[in-house]
Amino acid sequence: MNIAIIGLGLIGGSIGLAIKKTKGQGVRVIGFPHREETIAQALMLGAVDEGTLDLSQIATADIVFIATPLNKIIHALKESIPHLKKGVIVTDVGSSKYEIVKEAQSLMPKGTFFVGGHPMAGKEKAKLVSAEAELFIGRSWILTETTRTSKKAIETLTSLIAEMGSSVLIMDPKLHDLAVAGVSHMPLAISAALVNAVAFSKDGVEEMKKCASSGFRDTTRIASGDPELGVGMFTTNKKAVLKMIKGFKNSLSQLESAIKANNPDQILAFLQKAKEFRDGVFQG
Amino acid sequence: MNIAIIGLGLIGGSIGLAIKKTKGQGVRVIGFPHREETIAQALMLGAVDEGTLDLSQIATADIVFIATPLNKIIHALKESIPHLKKGVIVTDVGSSKYEIVKEAQSLMPKGTFFVGGHPMAGKEKAKLVSAEAELFIGRSWILTETTRTSKKAIETLTSLIAEMGSSVLIMDPKLHDLAVAGVSHMPLAISAALVNAVAFSKDGVEEMKKCASSGFRDTTRIASGDPELGVGMFTTNKKAVLKMIKGFKNSLSQLESAIKANNPDQILAFLQKAKEFRDGVFQG
Repeated sequence: MNIAIIGLGLIGGSIGLAIKKTKGQGVRVIGFPHREETIAQALMLGAVDEGTLDLSQIATADIVFIATPLNKIIHALKESIPHLKKGVIVTDVGSSKYEIVKEAQSLMPKGTFFVGGHPMAGKEKAKLVSAEAELFIGRSWILTETTRTSKKAIETLTSLIAEMGSSVLIMDPKLHDLAVAGVSHMPLAISAALVNAVAFSKDGVEEMKKCASSGFRDTTRIASGDPELGVGMFTTNKKAVLKMIKGFKNSLSQLESAIKANNPDQILAFLQKAKEFRDGVFQG
Repeated sequence: MNIAIIGLGLIGGSIGLAIKKTKGQGVRVIGFPHREETIAQALMLGAVDEGTLDLSQIATADIVFIATPLNKIIHALKESIPHLKKGVIVTDVGSSKYEIVKEAQSLMPKGTFFVGGHPMAGKEKAKLVSAEAELFIGRSWILTETTRTSKKAIETLTSLIAEMGSSVLIMDPKLHDLAVAGVSHMPLAISAALVNAVAFSKDGVEEMKKCASSGFRDTTRIASGDPELGVGMFTTNKKAVLKMIKGFKNSLSQLESAIKANNPDQILAFLQKAKEFRDGVFQG
């Protein structure tokens, strides 16, 4: 089997390492990085068997992973399409899916297959040098399904992904986007919004800095992440994020009303509901 | 020196242990717990030299720490007042200060002194059994100052608190309340509001549960805390919390507008500002 990986950062590199580790001799991995110098690095790490900037070399691939930044996925697909062989399965690793899947499905030539994907794995450093074969072990890897998605393509990808150690979750692209908006993009939105509310408070900024401890630290941790990644989330998953912001505002307004109304029972009920739901998702 | 501690939970017990450890023989600590059976426990732990439910015994105290739950502080003060000796310094450990300080100052008899206090130390388990002499080491301990506050009382408390290992921060009670609203109460408000927005989303709740990982986990951690503590925060620090909710909503609306307007530069600037401020407060 020939596997192509377009984009050799943390995710692309880790896919290469994971596949080569689990498939061994039975597979050939060709990497298509953004820059020439990445080829030597990827070969040295053992993430690919071969590297090239020439996308016409994708013609031999049975499976293609597009692991570029989110806003380059459709561009990479368009550049690849003239060279794809019949029966090829193309998937991506972008963290929002509805727009990408819609456009990709309309672009794919007859007899080729696109399945939107999203491995729920990451690290703070999104570089090839941090790539590891074990990145996906124990993680979820979402594959999206629409009426136009080939069941067979999903099956093929599911076994390959299982070999890398992840369990596949099949989701509708729109529900996927709403889900990541709720549990991945919203945490950043409210975390950054709280930091800025503190930073630009008319009074007490110095006092707040002095009083900040573990509650503020944990709740705002992701506001210290890479801002460029955040821009990617909010621009590519705009609709779902705006929907969740609206839901969040309604939720916060309920608490606000209860506080305004001096209603401790209502505040308690609000906090109890939140605790109950969160305790059902996480321990600690 | 005689020191009285009203309320022997985590904080009251730890104050007793810390004072007895650092002051040794030169001090006598009398504990006034809420329940009879706590006396034996506090004696066994070495948190007090003596324990009683009879508040008239407070008459010998030079310094009084009121370490009851927030909503019991004024009640405890009122009960103590008939028995206080001239020159006594009374302080509390409540996490909101403006209302308490205002009322306490108006209640204190001539020749007695009240200084609002807030040790920035805690643990998940707010019980006497978790008390430790080292709880305050390296933490901040806020003392509030108004035009009616005795400088000498602040000095006396500052040296005692320094002996327990904390550094004292002097703050205006109102700015203190705004500060804890911003960095302690708001994190809970938005954390619980996000969990409920997810829990009550019209679509995708199951998908969100499946997709939730570290970002959601950290950002919502404090929503799994004790709801009763949250009720205490929001009811006793109402004004400051409502002010910060307003500021937070404005801040979130800025991000929302930037997303709506497809303005990546504005989103980036928002996230960069947040990152810069937070990185200036915490590392990691």
